[in-house]
Amino acid sequence: MSLQVKEILHVEKSKFQDVLVFKSTNHGNVLVLDGVIQATEWDEFSYQEMIAHVPMFAHPNPEHVLVIGGGDGGVLRELVKHPELKHVTLVDIDEAVPRVSKLYLPDMAAGFDHPKVKLIIGDGFEYLKNNVGAFDVIITDSSDPVGPADVLFGEGFYALMKKSLKAGGIICTQGECQWLHLPLVKEVLDSSRKMFPVVEYAWASVPTYPCGNMGFILCCNEEGRNLKKPLRSFAPWDNKTRYYSAEVHGASFVLPVFTKKGLCLN
Amino acid sequence: MSLQVKEILHVEKSKFQDVLVFKSTNHGNVLVLDGVIQATEWDEFSYQEMIAHVPMFAHPNPEHVLVIGGGDGGVLRELVKHPELKHVTLVDIDEAVPRVSKLYLPDMAAGFDHPKVKLIIGDGFEYLKNNVGAFDVIITDSSDPVGPADVLFGEGFYALMKKSLKAGGIICTQGECQWLHLPLVKEVLDSSRKMFPVVEYAWASVPTYPCGNMGFILCCNEEGRNLKKPLRSFAPWDNKTRYYSAEVHGASFVLPVFTKKGLCLN
Repeated sequence: MSLQVKEILHVEKSKFQDVLVFKSTNHGNVLVLDGVIQATEWDEFSYQEMIAHVPMFAHPNPEHVLVIGGGDGGVLRELVKHPELKHVTLVDIDEAVPRVSKLYLPDMAAGFDHPKVKLIIGDGFEYLKNNVGAFDVIITDSSDPVGPADVLFGEGFYALMKKSLKAGGIICTQGECQWLHLPLVKEVLDSSRKMFPVVEYAWASVPTYPCGNMGFILCCNEEGRNLKKPLRSFAPWDNKTRYYSAEVHGASFVLPVFTKKGLCLN
Repeated sequence: MSLQVKEILHVEKSKFQDVLVFKSTNHGNVLVLDGVIQATEWDEFSYQEMIAHVPMFAHPNPEHVLVIGGGDGGVLRELVKHPELKHVTLVDIDEAVPRVSKLYLPDMAAGFDHPKVKLIIGDGFEYLKNNVGAFDVIITDSSDPVGPADVLFGEGFYALMKKSLKAGGIICTQGECQWLHLPLVKEVLDSSRKMFPVVEYAWASVPTYPCGNMGFILCCNEEGRNLKKPLRSFAPWDNKTRYYSAEVHGASFVLPVFTKKGLCLN
């Protein structure tokens, strides 16, 4: 499978990574970091909707939200659709990503303009340390665990996120691919289980990610919470989503047999 | 996304299509017909299990089964796991596919050796015409609607399958990709609805198909039947599947919002 490059729109070596945007023939504009596709205008909605709406609808009242990474703005665009939201802060380490996204991926970067949104360029670790017990939902929308995002898959990062959650809080992180990265996912789930009483894995179809597949790791700091069942939903006539629905929310936690076995889930 | 060719194992221009098998670096042996990947040893199980077990478990007593296409034998391998099965006939138009599969894809072609299986090289249309009211389940495991499989997506073919079903029978056909072929899928669903009282669409994750995604069209000739709920299941300790489970069965019918809209489903 391949995307045809119609025109290179932007090439830059930022302080942290190679940033590339190209116009493709059939998939709209495409953001590439360190050579890995992060989002295409054609299919980004499934990833952004799922990583945002699954934790938001699993939380009874998500007022204060933190996004780490997510500099393209797509997750913000989804988060501000929730009337419960009072404030969302996005912390991206690389100023180049929001800057370039605003220029070339305006439909994704739309979220930055919302009055409830605050953008901080900085280190997610530092930000977490300085904001203990502050958030109902923390979303880590990172690239793969190589380069600047590597640390975002480590136990230390999960421990910091836990401290920055309010009671009943939920974290949702990019969870790689069940077809390619089960041992890594299992490692993260196993160490998360030492810290959180509720840990789950969900997945969605995202054609331009490897294997057309993206997983999500969800943890909640309150025992007995069922993250698989949304507590609210958008009205269908609102046309707020193109992938996510209450039904899709539930189905995204249903894992193929090999995934359940690989993750030692019942 | 790409597969690395380690060694070309077989190249042939059969009477109907180009047949190629290569050994890949990371995906086992790969069967390619007319330039399109049909199956890799690495991920074929998700497709074969879903196209076989979803209709089989949705039928109360599937004794007589017909497979059209499916010459690699993988669907047969799954079908013979059902104790209810008394007899399955596989009709493939191209003798090259079973011949080559037996040589280079032995784990898929294993199904051909089972005593309940009969292989016929011939035209599925003709076979259906000569076997009216004969089958509980008909599975069409075809390549894409170009080349020899084109007619298998037409209204005439569905009408013939309908005539060859017993009362309460189910058909399940390869249903292309929701991300790429919604208009085609809608056309097939619309014409199926004129013939069958129950028509559904399901999907599964299959990494080496375009967009990592494959759909299935299911039709039943008995009003009010719920194909989304399996009527039986394999015992979990039997280890009979690597993708399919009763839970996966149900979730496979949950469609993203854009798919439901594109197919005009509620």
